[in-house]
Amino acid sequence: MNISKTVIQRLPRYYRYLEELKREGVTRISSGELSERMHVTASQIRQDLNHFGGFGQQGFGYRVDYLYDEIGKILGLDRIKHIILIGAGHLGQALANYTNYRRRGFNIEAIFDKDPEKVGTEVYGIRVQAMEELVPYIETHEVDIATLTIPKEQAVIVAKELVAAGIRAIWNFAHTELDVPEDVAVENVHLSESLMHLSYKAKNIRKEGEDEA
Amino acid sequence: MNISKTVIQRLPRYYRYLEELKREGVTRISSGELSERMHVTASQIRQDLNHFGGFGQQGFGYRVDYLYDEIGKILGLDRIKHIILIGAGHLGQALANYTNYRRRGFNIEAIFDKDPEKVGTEVYGIRVQAMEELVPYIETHEVDIATLTIPKEQAVIVAKELVAAGIRAIWNFAHTELDVPEDVAVENVHLSESLMHLSYKAKNIRKEGEDEA
Repeated sequence: MNISKTVIQRLPRYYRYLEELKREGVTRISSGELSERMHVTASQIRQDLNHFGGFGQQGFGYRVDYLYDEIGKILGLDRIKHIILIGAGHLGQALANYTNYRRRGFNIEAIFDKDPEKVGTEVYGIRVQAMEELVPYIETHEVDIATLTIPKEQAVIVAKELVAAGIRAIWNFAHTELDVPEDVAVENVHLSESLMHLSYKAKNIRKEGEDEA
Repeated sequence: MNISKTVIQRLPRYYRYLEELKREGVTRISSGELSERMHVTASQIRQDLNHFGGFGQQGFGYRVDYLYDEIGKILGLDRIKHIILIGAGHLGQALANYTNYRRRGFNIEAIFDKDPEKVGTEVYGIRVQAMEELVPYIETHEVDIATLTIPKEQAVIVAKELVAAGIRAIWNFAHTELDVPEDVAVENVHLSESLMHLSYKAKNIRKEGEDEA
């Protein structure tokens, strides 16, 4: 199936709302109702969901279960993902504690940190291991995703080790772009960029308001 | 100045790299060198930076200081931002501890939490206050940005209170879209969507590899 990048970027959001509907026991929903809930226009929703073969039926709406499963499959959520976490600081702990991932099959199974004081402690029931144990762990366990919650200087080095050890997906919270081969998927979460972007939006909303006055 | 949304989205990244260059004492840089560092094509860089009136000169490159200041002004980073944080859990603590924000003028000045056990404790030197103190605080202090690191059910309610109290920018980590008036800027950080997106990318990189085999 060929789906554009912008539609793909909206799929996790559809998935999240469909999950909510499922939990509420809703079995079908119209594009209008979904539009109201998601703050997206109904025509956008129809256009997006048409990519999956027109699941919606006039006067009947979308079948929540079916759409949820189909989008889940496209996103690769139909099987358990084995995740490791490198960096047991506050951000790492926040991610490890977040139970929503588990429900979607994202299992954080090992945590590594270079701080000897953290090694041996437990985060959400997972024992923190030393960095020396990272590569041996990858070589003996199935690992789908490695999460980097360490400073950027370290992240660049660790990313190289991860790739050499066979990791093919990195969730990167370090404030740098990682230099990895083309067959390695990287998803960056740059929090400081997000904050700068908010600063820009706030400034320009204010300006528009002033222009009108 | 009219700049497209996609260029705006890249500005924080330029700013981050220019900051790095400044710190290293680099005073000018060619689009080629910047391209290598940022993993963006040189022509993309030239195209983007031309929006600011062609600061680059053939054979001379870009003046790092000047570009840094100009982009900073566009992003609204040329003055201190007063930030409050609602939710002193792991994620809130991770954000409060992150010193890079301070360097860019983002000052976290107050933290609120509804958990009586957290109220009165200190996070990065800031005393956690009870939720009852939130609105009175906003009414007596300058607050530019409110950060929400609380569960989505609470976030929806607190966002309404924030807007009513006069907040015009919300950095939202709750897994929901906030229903705010048009003159309120919201920047969402949906970590679970980011993880689903990575899952999709990893799956499809693997597929491409298989097709070739």
